[in-house]
Amino acid sequence: MHLISAKNKTSSYPVYIGYNILQNIKLFKDNLKNSRLIIVIDNIVSDLYLTAILNLFVAYSIDVITIGVGEEHKTWDSVSKIIEILTQKKHDRFSTLISFGGGVVGDLAGFAASIFMRGISWIQVPTTLLAQVDAAIGGKTGCNYLGVKNLIGTFYKPRAVVIDVALLKTLAEREYLSGLAEIVKYGMACDGEFFVWLEINSYKLKNRDTQVLQQVIHRCCKIKLAVVELDEKDEGLRRTLNFGHTFAHALEAATKFQRYLHGEAVAIGMLLATRLAVKLGLVGPELLERLRKLLGSLGLAFELEHVACTADVLFNYMTNDKKNHAEQLCLILPCALGEVRVIQGFKLEILEDLIEDYASN
Amino acid sequence: MHLISAKNKTSSYPVYIGYNILQNIKLFKDNLKNSRLIIVIDNIVSDLYLTAILNLFVAYSIDVITIGVGEEHKTWDSVSKIIEILTQKKHDRFSTLISFGGGVVGDLAGFAASIFMRGISWIQVPTTLLAQVDAAIGGKTGCNYLGVKNLIGTFYKPRAVVIDVALLKTLAEREYLSGLAEIVKYGMACDGEFFVWLEINSYKLKNRDTQVLQQVIHRCCKIKLAVVELDEKDEGLRRTLNFGHTFAHALEAATKFQRYLHGEAVAIGMLLATRLAVKLGLVGPELLERLRKLLGSLGLAFELEHVACTADVLFNYMTNDKKNHAEQLCLILPCALGEVRVIQGFKLEILEDLIEDYASN
Repeated sequence: MHLISAKNKTSSYPVYIGYNILQNIKLFKDNLKNSRLIIVIDNIVSDLYLTAILNLFVAYSIDVITIGVGEEHKTWDSVSKIIEILTQKKHDRFSTLISFGGGVVGDLAGFAASIFMRGISWIQVPTTLLAQVDAAIGGKTGCNYLGVKNLIGTFYKPRAVVIDVALLKTLAEREYLSGLAEIVKYGMACDGEFFVWLEINSYKLKNRDTQVLQQVIHRCCKIKLAVVELDEKDEGLRRTLNFGHTFAHALEAATKFQRYLHGEAVAIGMLLATRLAVKLGLVGPELLERLRKLLGSLGLAFELEHVACTADVLFNYMTNDKKNHAEQLCLILPCALGEVRVIQGFKLEILEDLIEDYASN
Repeated sequence: MHLISAKNKTSSYPVYIGYNILQNIKLFKDNLKNSRLIIVIDNIVSDLYLTAILNLFVAYSIDVITIGVGEEHKTWDSVSKIIEILTQKKHDRFSTLISFGGGVVGDLAGFAASIFMRGISWIQVPTTLLAQVDAAIGGKTGCNYLGVKNLIGTFYKPRAVVIDVALLKTLAEREYLSGLAEIVKYGMACDGEFFVWLEINSYKLKNRDTQVLQQVIHRCCKIKLAVVELDEKDEGLRRTLNFGHTFAHALEAATKFQRYLHGEAVAIGMLLATRLAVKLGLVGPELLERLRKLLGSLGLAFELEHVACTADVLFNYMTNDKKNHAEQLCLILPCALGEVRVIQGFKLEILEDLIEDYASN
């Protein structure tokens, strides 16, 4: 088992990564205030693992809240449902909320935990690859609101994160691939050596080799935590981790969160951003080729939905993105393998060309 | 002008206290990220001061959001209204929200600022005495939800707090008295010397002497900030500041937030808690007498609403209070002048006697 300590200036919490570590009740026990637990779990994970989870916590008083899977459930209504049950069951500030699920359930449960009675303890058990390498790391919580992705939320630290690679065995192939896109992002945006390692190990990774998975997740968590430690509130450095994401959020919104999984949109977003960087002369065309090849060998090749995703529509969503300052379109573009740069001041025209190109290649 | 620095382990923000200091635009200017402001203001303060405020910020781009006065507006709907306008007007994470109003508007605006895009800058201008000595100090935000007072909220630090005593000139008498109750609380719970000082200066205080007010507010803010610095998340010491409040919250809830202003309920709560302490032999009857006399000389004498506030009803609300651990009724009782103690394990019967007594005296 790997153990990383997620630190900031005042506090730290443990991130445990391993195979079958969910069985190790001590990891949880050490992080509870008393014996009252609330389990927030997505319905797919519930079908597969709830019985085992309840057996694990047999000595505790447990309330279970099930949340539907998918972006369409990432609403204030879901947050409110959690708050309502916490209130009905008379939970107080000494209860601990444990979330089992992907990024959506983690963000919702974390948001509810952060605002219920101004914050209760929260242990996060991410069950998708995407959540294990990204969403569960770094303390961002939230939900969509008024049709805007993650419009409301908080920065809130979990008490612990427990990452069990064994849970990935049952993960749907599309969800798994979506997580791989986020892994490639770390290589492209922060760590060129890791990108090369991924090129070499892409076959094992595609086939869910548990050793390789533990190494990959450990590496991604370390990269993300190092960035988050320096820029907890997402004011500068942390933006580099949004490589591909300004495009991705717009693609998801333009298709009403129905067409793409987050990682699928990120894969397209990285290709668009890299293509733009080539156009601007920031990087040579061979980097775009390597990115395309790695994504392809991992099984990630996605079509752009041209009907919904016109340049106009995307531009409008992109200028609404939280990362934009004063309505200027600002993008994170690669400037070398493992390195990105924030560039401001893009206009609509640049997207028109880019999106036309994407189709023709 | 007094300047206090509100500190915790990682950060600090200034609390300015003075007469007519709102005119000093520099206090604001130093704490803005750019020129886009959102002013959240209650409708009474708006009628009296909005024109002056807009003149003050004439060089800035301003959106104004007006919120109704009173506890019945402390709802998620009000928070949502702020979020909605922030979104419509395309504010981003570099905008600053400035709130003008009492505790309700401060809590609502702070909550909205803390969750919009996971937190934007917030400057708080409390306009009631209660907010100036209590609500605006210590970083608690929130709103009522599902009929429970402050069920959801966050701990969120403002960028600065600007306390202008000149604003109190126009404060309604009942609101002013409500603030005085909270001031007496600091004396009773934390600072016996201050209690004696209040006994001596009660006449001037009742008559809104601006010098005395600046001294009083400065002292209260210093007490509260010292406590908050040691116990930011309300896990121990900070509970002492809730002297009288477990009763008060129940009284407010039982009368559907219609009958009592917060401070009025706190005054009754302090009398009930002190009477209970006398019954238990924690303090002598002379302390109850001094408290009653000070409250009286300040103009604070409130009746208990017996029809709505039966022992049963109050007990039920009190065991739902955030400060209660595992459904045990836990109260903060005086054990000497300027000193309180947290005592656990009270049952319904104790309230029945207490409430009957209150009527007969």
